[in-house]
Amino acid sequence: MSAPTQPQFDPDLAREEAAGDPRQLVERREVGMSLEAPFYTSQEYYDLDIDAIFAKSWIFVANEAEIPDAGDYVTVTVGRYSIIVTRDDDENVRAYHNVCRHRGARIINDERGSVGRIVCGYHQWTYGMDGKLVFADSQAPDFDPSCFSLRGVHARSVGGLIFICISNDTPPDFDDFAATVEPYLAPHRLREAKVAKQIDLIEHGNWKLTVENNRECYHCGGHPELLSSYFPVYGFDLDDLPPRLVPARDRYVTAMAELVDKCETLSLPYAEIEELDTRPTGFRIDRVPLEKAGESFTPDGTAASKRLMADFPSPKLGRLGFHVQPNAWFHFMADHAITFSAIPIAPDQTLVRTTWLVHPDAVEGVDYDIDNLTSVWRATNEQDAGFVERAHQGLLSPAYIPGPYSPSEYQVEAFINWYIGRLRKHLAE
Amino acid sequence: MSAPTQPQFDPDLAREEAAGDPRQLVERREVGMSLEAPFYTSQEYYDLDIDAIFAKSWIFVANEAEIPDAGDYVTVTVGRYSIIVTRDDDENVRAYHNVCRHRGARIINDERGSVGRIVCGYHQWTYGMDGKLVFADSQAPDFDPSCFSLRGVHARSVGGLIFICISNDTPPDFDDFAATVEPYLAPHRLREAKVAKQIDLIEHGNWKLTVENNRECYHCGGHPELLSSYFPVYGFDLDDLPPRLVPARDRYVTAMAELVDKCETLSLPYAEIEELDTRPTGFRIDRVPLEKAGESFTPDGTAASKRLMADFPSPKLGRLGFHVQPNAWFHFMADHAITFSAIPIAPDQTLVRTTWLVHPDAVEGVDYDIDNLTSVWRATNEQDAGFVERAHQGLLSPAYIPGPYSPSEYQVEAFINWYIGRLRKHLAE
Amino acid sequence: MSAPTQPQFDPDLAREEAAGDPRQLVERREVGMSLEAPFYTSQEYYDLDIDAIFAKSWIFVANEAEIPDAGDYVTVTVGRYSIIVTRDDDENVRAYHNVCRHRGARIINDERGSVGRIVCGYHQWTYGMDGKLVFADSQAPDFDPSCFSLRGVHARSVGGLIFICISNDTPPDFDDFAATVEPYLAPHRLREAKVAKQIDLIEHGNWKLTVENNRECYHCGGHPELLSSYFPVYGFDLDDLPPRLVPARDRYVTAMAELVDKCETLSLPYAEIEELDTRPTGFRIDRVPLEKAGESFTPDGTAASKRLMADFPSPKLGRLGFHVQPNAWFHFMADHAITFSAIPIAPDQTLVRTTWLVHPDAVEGVDYDIDNLTSVWRATNEQDAGFVERAHQGLLSPAYIPGPYSPSEYQVEAFINWYIGRLRKHLAE
Repeated sequence: MSAPTQPQFDPDLAREEAAGDPRQLVERREVGMSLEAPFYTSQEYYDLDIDAIFAKSWIFVANEAEIPDAGDYVTVTVGRYSIIVTRDDDENVRAYHNVCRHRGARIINDERGSVGRIVCGYHQWTYGMDGKLVFADSQAPDFDPSCFSLRGVHARSVGGLIFICISNDTPPDFDDFAATVEPYLAPHRLREAKVAKQIDLIEHGNWKLTVENNRECYHCGGHPELLSSYFPVYGFDLDDLPPRLVPARDRYVTAMAELVDKCETLSLPYAEIEELDTRPTGFRIDRVPLEKAGESFTPDGTAASKRLMADFPSPKLGRLGFHVQPNAWFHFMADHAITFSAIPIAPDQTLVRTTWLVHPDAVEGVDYDIDNLTSVWRATNEQDAGFVERAHQGLLSPAYIPGPYSPSEYQVEAFINWYIGRLRKHLAE
Repeated sequence: MSAPTQPQFDPDLAREEAAGDPRQLVERREVGMSLEAPFYTSQEYYDLDIDAIFAKSWIFVANEAEIPDAGDYVTVTVGRYSIIVTRDDDENVRAYHNVCRHRGARIINDERGSVGRIVCGYHQWTYGMDGKLVFADSQAPDFDPSCFSLRGVHARSVGGLIFICISNDTPPDFDDFAATVEPYLAPHRLREAKVAKQIDLIEHGNWKLTVENNRECYHCGGHPELLSSYFPVYGFDLDDLPPRLVPARDRYVTAMAELVDKCETLSLPYAEIEELDTRPTGFRIDRVPLEKAGESFTPDGTAASKRLMADFPSPKLGRLGFHVQPNAWFHFMADHAITFSAIPIAPDQTLVRTTWLVHPDAVEGVDYDIDNLTSVWRATNEQDAGFVERAHQGLLSPAYIPGPYSPSEYQVEAFINWYIGRLRKHLAE
Repeated sequence: MSAPTQPQFDPDLAREEAAGDPRQLVERREVGMSLEAPFYTSQEYYDLDIDAIFAKSWIFVANEAEIPDAGDYVTVTVGRYSIIVTRDDDENVRAYHNVCRHRGARIINDERGSVGRIVCGYHQWTYGMDGKLVFADSQAPDFDPSCFSLRGVHARSVGGLIFICISNDTPPDFDDFAATVEPYLAPHRLREAKVAKQIDLIEHGNWKLTVENNRECYHCGGHPELLSSYFPVYGFDLDDLPPRLVPARDRYVTAMAELVDKCETLSLPYAEIEELDTRPTGFRIDRVPLEKAGESFTPDGTAASKRLMADFPSPKLGRLGFHVQPNAWFHFMADHAITFSAIPIAPDQTLVRTTWLVHPDAVEGVDYDIDNLTSVWRATNEQDAGFVERAHQGLLSPAYIPGPYSPSEYQVEAFINWYIGRLRKHLAE
C-alpha cells in the first residue's frame, strides 16, 4: 500500500531550491521548460518584475478613445505606481505620476474624468496639463514652483493604443516598432473609435501566468464560446496536428486563401511578423480568418456592430491579431476591436482590463447590442481566470518542478525567453 | 498611581529575544515551561514546522471510509502542499502531489469525487490511478511520458485511518506503531464504516495551540456539553486531585472497574500505552469509561446510533481514546467513532476536520439523528476554537514570556518534548 | 508626444533609496521636507515605531471617565500589545499586560467591563486588581504564585486623561509636563465627566499621516462642517495670511480679545505653551476662541449641552486646545470635551478613537442631543480619514520624493522633528 517511490521527493531540497536568488535562477533556467516557482510566487521576484519589466518596458495601459478630448484622463496602476494618463491642451497624450510634489498625496482618486488643471485633493496644489505647478497656497517668498512640476512618465500612442514607459531610460526600439505595426493598425482608425464597454477582471494568479495562458491555444478545449469563431489551430504546426484539429485546419486553410485575396484587393496588410524574443519591444502581428460566418467574435461569427469601423467595405476581414511583450494583446475586426492589458497587482493577483471599441457613430441598441458584442470574451476571460488560478495554485506546492512545453506552446516559451532576457539585462546593470 | 514595577519590562530586550533563530530557541527551550512566542507566531517558524514536522512525520489526513471504492479521492492541503488521496484500481490507498507535471497546474480543484483516471483540468494531461502519465496531447516525437509520472506521497492505512508522509525519508517506526495499535482499532472495523458527517472548522491560532489544547483537560470547565459524558479527570493524577474533581474521580474508578471486566470478557484491548515523546511516531492509546449512561458522546451519554459498529454486543464499551503526534486524535465508541485532524493553514490558522463514522448499514433518521450524533463535539470544537484564538492573541504580545505547565498538563509538555526533538533532528540534518 | 523629461525618474535608484536602513534614513532626513517613504510604508519601520515611539513614550489611551469605579476596565491595543487599563480597589488607575502568566493566553477578550478580580478565560488563573496571582488550580507543591504576577504597565492620569508607558524606562519629564498642563485641564473637571459617546474609526494610512493631518489647517477647506465653528487660521502667521483668510483673521482677533478678558475674569489659564519638539513629552496647549456663536463645535457654534461642564458660568469660553506627542489631541469647551487617540494597527492602518465627554449630570435627550453633539467631528473625522488614505496611497509610489512644508505646516514639521529625535535616541541605545 506504499505510494510509488518514483519520483522521490525531498522537502529540504525543495525548500533550498526555492530560496535561490534571482541571478542564480535566471542563469540555471532550462530552455524548453516552465520557470521555477519563485518567479511566480515570491514577493521578491514580483518586485523585481515591476522594476525590471514593468518600469523599463513600454506598457500598454489605455486607448486614445478613452480620453478623446483635452483634459480627459484615466488613472492606471502598475505595481505600486499610480499614473495619470491624459491629453494636454494641445491634445497630445501625456502621463504623470499621480503623486503630489507637496507631501506626496495621491492627487486624483477617480479612475477617469475630465479636468482643466490637475488639482491635488488634499491641499489644492494645482498643476497645468503640461505638469507644471501653477498654484500652491501660502508659500514662503523663496518658494520656486518650477522645482515642483509633476514627475513625468513617457507616453506614446501607436495607432491609438497608448503605451507608457516609467523609466527615463526607454527601450530604444520603439520608433521602429511603431513604424512596423502602424500600417497594420491604421486602417482600423482606433483614434476615432468609441469605447462601447470596458470590464476589469482580477485574476488570482501571477501576471506571467495570465500572459502565458494568452499565448497558447493548447488549452482551447476549455473555451466553448470562443470556439464559435476562433480557429483552435493557433500556435500549432499546420502540418503536424492532432487528428481532432485536422477538420478545423482544412476550413482554416480555405478561409485564409479567401482572406488573402480580399486583403490584396483592399491593400490591407496581413503578413505575419513575429519578433517575440528578439527585441526589447517584442511583438507578433498577423491577420487571420475567423470560423463560421468569419466576421467577428460572436456566438455565430457574424458582425456584432452593423456600423463597421473605419468605413470598411466588408464585415468579413478576419482578425488582425497583435500582441506585445509583456502585457498586451488585441483583436481588430471589421466591426469592432478588443484591447486587453494585464497589470500586476500582487504576486498572486493580476488585473485584466478588456475594452471593446466600435465606430464612433455606432449607436448602442441600434447598431450593436452590448451583450452580443461582449459575450464571447466575457466568457473566455472568466474561463482563463480559472486556468490562471489553477496554474498559480499548483505552483505554490513545494512539489512543483518545471515541466516541458509542447510544440504548440512555442509562444509561451518565446515570452519566457524575452522575460529572462530582460531580467538578465536588468540584473547586469 | 504608578503600576507595579515587578516584573520589569524592556521592549528592546523582548524584540531581541523574539528575533532569535530557531536553533538558538530550540536549544534554550526550558522544560516545564511553554514555548517562546516565535514558535507560534512567526512565518519563519511556521515554514520550519511544515518542513520539519508535517513533511517528515506520518500525518493523519482522511479515513478509508471517505474513499470506499476504486477511483474515489479526497484532496487535502498541508501547508502549501496539495495532495490527492485516492484508491487505485487494486483498491490500495495511494497519494500523489496534486501538481501537473506539464506546467505545474493544480490538477484537481474539487475536495472529493470519483474518477477513472486523474485528468488535469488545464491541458488534459491524463494520469492512471498508479500515477503514470497515459496521455498528453501534441508532443514532440522524443517526448517520453514515463518521465512525467505524478510525484508520489507515501500513504498507509492503520485500521482504516489514512496516514501520509510527504518526505521520501519516512520515520522508521511506522510498522511497529501500526502493529501496536491495530489490535485496539481492529474491533471497530473502521474500514467498513460509513461517514455520517464531516465538519471543517478554521481555528484562528497556530496548529500547536490546537494540539496543546487537545492534550489537557485543565480547561474542561469551559466545555459544559462535553462534561455530560466525559470524565474531566483526563491528565490528572487520580491520587492528587483538586477537591472539585473528587466526586467525578470516584464515579470514574467504579466505571473503570466495570469496563475492565467487560473488556476481559469480550477480549477487547484496553491497557494504556503512552509513548508520547519517546519515538518518531509518538502516540497514546487506552480504553476508558464515559460518564452518565456511559455509552457515547451525547447529551445524556446514551448511544447516538442504534446500529452499533462492528456488531458490538453492548453499547457501553466506554471510549477507545487515541492520539498521534503531531496532528490527530480519535474517539471510538461502540456506536460511533470520531476522527480529528489538525492541519496548518498559516501561522495563525489551523483547519480542524472532524468526521463522524457509523456502522455502514446505520440509516440516518432511523438509527441515528445527525444533530444528536454531533452536538457534543460541535459545541466542544467551537469552544476549543475560542480557547485557541485566545491563546494565540495573547502570544502576539511582546510582553508574553513562557509560563509553567501544571501537572495535569503533562501531555502538553510531552507533545512539546516530541516537537522539540523532531525540530532538533531536522536542524541537525 | 513624449512626456516631460523633467524631473527624470530612475526606478532602480528609487528602489535602492527605499531600501536604506533606518539609521541611514534618520541621518539624511532633510529639515523642511516630508519624510522618505519607508517611514510610512514599511513593516520594518512600523515595528521600529512601536518599539521606539509607542513603547517608550507616554501614550494617551483612555479617560478616567471610562472607568469611574473600582474594577472597571478597558482593554487597549498598541501595536501587538494588549493592555488592561483598570481602577484598583483603592481607585488608583493601573495598567497590566493582558497576557496570562500561565501559557500566555489573552486574559480578557472584551473591550470594556467591570470585574472583582482579573480572571483568565482559559484556565481561570485569577489575579487581584493589584496584579498578584491569587488563584491557580492544581499546581505542584513548589509552585510559587508570587512569581506570576501580571506584568505591569506604567499608568498616569493628568486631569482625568490616562497616559500609559509600556517601557520600564519612562521619559523623565512627565511630572513636569503634568504640573504644567494640569492647571489648564483642572477647571474642566474631566475626572467627574460622563462619556456621552465613543466612536472608533480605522484610517487606512500610517499613524504619522494621521497625526500630521491633525497638526495643520492648510487642508481645512476640505472640512465644511468644521468651519462652522473653527477659525481656519490655525498654524498660520496672522500677519502673513492668504487673502481668503483675512476676514476670518479679523473676526478671530476680535474674539480673542473678548476671550482673554473673560479668562482673566474667571482666572482660566489661556496662554499658549508650545514645546512640540524640545522635550520627550512634547505638547502644545492654548485657549482660543471659536467662530460664529463661539461656544462649541456644533453646526451653529452654540453649546451642544445645556448642562455646562464643571459649573462653568458661561458657554462661551472658546476652546482649550491641547495636543501631546505622539498620539493625542483634545478640545475642551465649556459644554463638552472631545478626546482623540491615534493608535497604530499596521503600517497602513490606524485606529482613531474619539470620545465625547459631558457633565456627569447632563441627560441625553434633555440636556444634549447625541447627533448635534457629535456631528461636526464625525464629519471631520471621516474627511480626515479620506485625506490620510490619499496621503498613504501616494507615498506607496516609488515616484514619491519628499516635498516642502508650507509655513503654516510648522507643527507638522515639529512633530517630525520630535519623531526623528526619538528615533535617533532609540537607535543610539
